[in-house]
Amino acid sequence: MKNRTLLKDVSKKVGEEVTIYGWLHKKRQLGGLNFLLVRDRSGLVQMLVEEKKELEKLRGMQIGTVVEISGFVVEDDRAPGGSEIHSPKINVLSPVTDEPPIEIDKPLSHKPENLDTLFENRVIGLRNLQETKIFRIRSKILQYIRDFLNKNDFTEIQSPKIVGGAAEGGAEVFKFDYFGKEATLAQSPQLYKQIMVGVYERVYEIGPAFRAELSATTRHVCEVTMLDIEMGFIESHEDVLNLVQDLTSSVLRKIYEECSEELRSLNAPELILTDNFPRYSVTQIHELYSKATGNNTTGEKDLFPDEERWICDWAKKNDGCEAVFVTDFPIETHKFYQKINPENPNTVLSADLLFRGVEIATCPMRENNYQKMVEQMREKGIDPEDPGFSYYLQAFKYGLPPHGGCGFGIDRFTQKITGLNNIKEAILFPRDINRLTP
Amino acid sequence: MKNRTLLKDVSKKVGEEVTIYGWLHKKRQLGGLNFLLVRDRSGLVQMLVEEKKELEKLRGMQIGTVVEISGFVVEDDRAPGGSEIHSPKINVLSPVTDEPPIEIDKPLSHKPENLDTLFENRVIGLRNLQETKIFRIRSKILQYIRDFLNKNDFTEIQSPKIVGGAAEGGAEVFKFDYFGKEATLAQSPQLYKQIMVGVYERVYEIGPAFRAELSATTRHVCEVTMLDIEMGFIESHEDVLNLVQDLTSSVLRKIYEECSEELRSLNAPELILTDNFPRYSVTQIHELYSKATGNNTTGEKDLFPDEERWICDWAKKNDGCEAVFVTDFPIETHKFYQKINPENPNTVLSADLLFRGVEIATCPMRENNYQKMVEQMREKGIDPEDPGFSYYLQAFKYGLPPHGGCGFGIDRFTQKITGLNNIKEAILFPRDINRLTP
Repeated sequence: MKNRTLLKDVSKKVGEEVTIYGWLHKKRQLGGLNFLLVRDRSGLVQMLVEEKKELEKLRGMQIGTVVEISGFVVEDDRAPGGSEIHSPKINVLSPVTDEPPIEIDKPLSHKPENLDTLFENRVIGLRNLQETKIFRIRSKILQYIRDFLNKNDFTEIQSPKIVGGAAEGGAEVFKFDYFGKEATLAQSPQLYKQIMVGVYERVYEIGPAFRAELSATTRHVCEVTMLDIEMGFIESHEDVLNLVQDLTSSVLRKIYEECSEELRSLNAPELILTDNFPRYSVTQIHELYSKATGNNTTGEKDLFPDEERWICDWAKKNDGCEAVFVTDFPIETHKFYQKINPENPNTVLSADLLFRGVEIATCPMRENNYQKMVEQMREKGIDPEDPGFSYYLQAFKYGLPPHGGCGFGIDRFTQKITGLNNIKEAILFPRDINRLTP
Repeated sequence: MKNRTLLKDVSKKVGEEVTIYGWLHKKRQLGGLNFLLVRDRSGLVQMLVEEKKELEKLRGMQIGTVVEISGFVVEDDRAPGGSEIHSPKINVLSPVTDEPPIEIDKPLSHKPENLDTLFENRVIGLRNLQETKIFRIRSKILQYIRDFLNKNDFTEIQSPKIVGGAAEGGAEVFKFDYFGKEATLAQSPQLYKQIMVGVYERVYEIGPAFRAELSATTRHVCEVTMLDIEMGFIESHEDVLNLVQDLTSSVLRKIYEECSEELRSLNAPELILTDNFPRYSVTQIHELYSKATGNNTTGEKDLFPDEERWICDWAKKNDGCEAVFVTDFPIETHKFYQKINPENPNTVLSADLLFRGVEIATCPMRENNYQKMVEQMREKGIDPEDPGFSYYLQAFKYGLPPHGGCGFGIDRFTQKITGLNNIKEAILFPRDINRLTP
């Protein structure tokens, strides 16, 4: 658009005539005067409408109407942004004749009981200024993650989302017919990113992952966006934890710096973070939690959701950090591709990163020895000859260095940064057991 | 790894002792001397092995063996990179005892008749230095695309890949059971990115798209990576073409600048590009082609693949540009969401971007008027009340500005930049009618 002034720049043009484009965001009468609020991608601006001809145009003009407006910029401390447009000439580009199904000029309710309404009206609800902030922050999170990884010599990859039937087992898999063969939707790029360690040493992917989650919780959906990282030539599991820690804290600090205004207006919590995240073993957390709450969890192999919340609160108070590593998972949780701790074969070299009460990432070191991998597969009842695994095993047979990485949930991370209650609120168009549209 | 020297930095350390990590890439004997080539993520380095103890270690040590090697850097003009490592002490981190299924130290054959072998051995074949260049260039393409779009105020989005059954029709769709409902894999983020124009004006997404392609061509696969862009508040179709043109030429020029060495070693063609890409209507191309080749295509609604190749060659010679816009598609090609040319209702405001003989992007302007959209849907036999479309229509009903965008094929673009014959060669693990693994 020639000569377009973005709304964020209007206040720099006091005394000038400007042409702006946007959506009618709100009409209001104040002291007998008629005001319009217009929204564009950069912000809001207020107009004072006085001419009869223009006032007549407003009649029946509904919120959302797409307009081109020319007018004069006048300084006014009472107006949002410190200036407003006077004598606007309104030209309608796309008329809207019906009243929108929801009011978008005040924050939408994110109360658990109102989530259905929120998603039923998602297409228009996303135009709400609070909602736009959530997803602008989300896009920044992705940008800062890529910046960090590119700077650290990671290569971005895209692995297939359509995978052979056998490679991903379990009930939580979507299956479909692929030209007469059974295919599934990838639950993670796990096997592919390990293969790619043999090529680039350090790789990452940001993409969708699919899980047929039958349970309706605040932490699960059927389609998530995952950051997957894998790094070769590590000395120990420490290197994996340090990478995830540095990435997480670098992104968090940058988001809190660059999006401070948005976070404030979303009522997101203050960031409480130390450079080194506290690390507690599963056993330690069970003991601390049992002692503090009276609920005995000692001996359990994994943490309960309530323990995840509790240890985050505890670490925030005691360590001054909202991010916590849970380490030394018991051998019962062992997956065939994870490395057993050689110094303590009762534990696996895997850790979870918790942030504000929820697991954000799983960060294991991998078994990289071919023979051991084959053994670990057999122990779990996996046939190493199965085509879904035999290709994968080639990477080990022909040399993989010690490596580890993480699966890092972008949706949960966004949710927790912006202070939302439910993972779905951090996803544009979430998919759960009941929701396949919009 | 403490004290690790990346192989690209070895030549900077002449006279020093270094420790390097990598894969055994090649063993060779030259004039009675034993040389090793080692590969890491940054490059190759040559070692001269003379000590008996080390020579014995080499026996049976296969390509791919993961090693840690300490030795002294010596200047040697005959060695690749101008230096080599003497008196290496070899420590095996991951042994490889079998000979790899393919030789990876010379370029792999990409001849059409050898593609099955190429993909059958993909896991190890990707370690070939030529292959690593292709996918490193691909990752740079994505990076430069995002840089350009972020700089131009576009917001990155992620739309769902699981969509309702009705929204995407046709035979070329993968269908599956979603908790008792029929779901499909998204063929494109089309509807979602248009909805998001109502929120951010300018959005983009890079992600997978799924097409049940029954035909085996050099241009089609079942899972592609698409860049989808949509931009609101445009004045005309021109704005869409200019955006795609500026993006394409900016990325191409940057790739040819930053990856010139890789492109040369891949025998990629020189870049021949003008700032303004030539634009020809479908009718013009039919006429030019028919006159030049004697094959009469006038009156056909779309271009044949051979015409796409021909017009690119023609424009390269006559306009000095390998990128060409094909404009003024006849009304017979009209899709319900495209805008009909108001100045010539026999044509649609859509254009294809061709590059080096292949369609890289489709760049339509959209119909943004709610009433017209409903009419255009009805004309195509689509029920506007269908839930797959009723949500989408809300965006129009409550105000969408004039907008347009493109679907831009990352795989084809990578293929054409790196000079490959088949789209599959530009995809790490391609999926076609016969290939579901690795």
